[in-house]
Amino acid sequence: MTSVSRGRRPGSPDTRSAILDAARTMFARSGLSGTSVRAIAAAAGVDPALVHHYFGSKDELFVAALQLPFDFREVLAPVVAHGADGAAERLLPVFLSIWDDPQLQPALLALARSLTDPSSKELMRDGFLTVVIGPIGAALGLEEPERRMPLVASQMMGLIFMRYLLEVEPIASMPADELVATFAPTLQRYLTGPLPPGTPAA
Amino acid sequence: MTSVSRGRRPGSPDTRSAILDAARTMFARSGLSGTSVRAIAAAAGVDPALVHHYFGSKDELFVAALQLPFDFREVLAPVVAHGADGAAERLLPVFLSIWDDPQLQPALLALARSLTDPSSKELMRDGFLTVVIGPIGAALGLEEPERRMPLVASQMMGLIFMRYLLEVEPIASMPADELVATFAPTLQRYLTGPLPPGTPAA
Repeated sequence: MTSVSRGRRPGSPDTRSAILDAARTMFARSGLSGTSVRAIAAAAGVDPALVHHYFGSKDELFVAALQLPFDFREVLAPVVAHGADGAAERLLPVFLSIWDDPQLQPALLALARSLTDPSSKELMRDGFLTVVIGPIGAALGLEEPERRMPLVASQMMGLIFMRYLLEVEPIASMPADELVATFAPTLQRYLTGPLPPGTPAA
Repeated sequence: MTSVSRGRRPGSPDTRSAILDAARTMFARSGLSGTSVRAIAAAAGVDPALVHHYFGSKDELFVAALQLPFDFREVLAPVVAHGADGAAERLLPVFLSIWDDPQLQPALLALARSLTDPSSKELMRDGFLTVVIGPIGAALGLEEPERRMPLVASQMMGLIFMRYLLEVEPIASMPADELVATFAPTLQRYLTGPLPPGTPAA
């Protein structure tokens, strides 16, 4: 572990980005649960209180470190607010409008491409699912969200790969409303439909 | 374009691998349809007749160039032979037994990781889907196989990412029979179920 301590003044303009750099490095190395705010603060050469001052909780810092080009939780709030019934048909258009936005797409594609980096395993498994996907399932009031949300993520991820990364037709050129009608039944079954009896959620 | 002509004797032991090397390079650069057997032969410094001698058609050469650790068409023959009804429940166990095989998994993971290379776009879009996925749909006797098989591929790809690359729980540890029961209804709907009226297949 390298400790980068350059004696930055608390509150200097680059304190925030030093914390973010340290957080990205350490989350990628050790995942969300294996990384403490104290260790990030030490690596950035700042007091832990400053980390909380700039970012709030560790989860908030993780979300900031993901560098998503928008606040997905804000965007998804209307979807989540109406509960699980019909959620797939509300979720997919929002999701597609984000991905189809030419301003946002480059950053999202870079994020999707990084999924095959070995370091992404920690970030995704331990972080993105816990901090991003998990809370959506909880907010929707799902039964067994820990089991259902990864199923949703599996189809979303496959759709992203086919449409945006590999540009496989006809998915690549399909109008949003046809994509919604095609994939919503799958997602809605994962959200609220019958699943086989199985392994209890971890 | 570099032409590697080292005057190999026809039929020398490394002629076959020289052709394969040239094919991989050129398929990755120009895709299946943009690459001719003649051009591959020229790059490998052999007569085009030798390419046909070793590999048969261009499609066969493409499959060889993918370097899959098994002949997937042989493996899938029993699935395909029984038609589209219930095909998802026959396809998934075969698919999972291949991916869960510790002998095969490293090569398959390397292939999956390479999907985010920009060169994979050509290989996947123009090659894998045409040569591998497409014929399965045709052999199953699907209606609109060009529209349905990419949907199947989208869920399979997402399952692979969640289970094998990112190792997201509970999907990563789920027994095969639970995975089949969870994902088969999705795949069967894509194969034979109602789809929204939409863009005609290209």
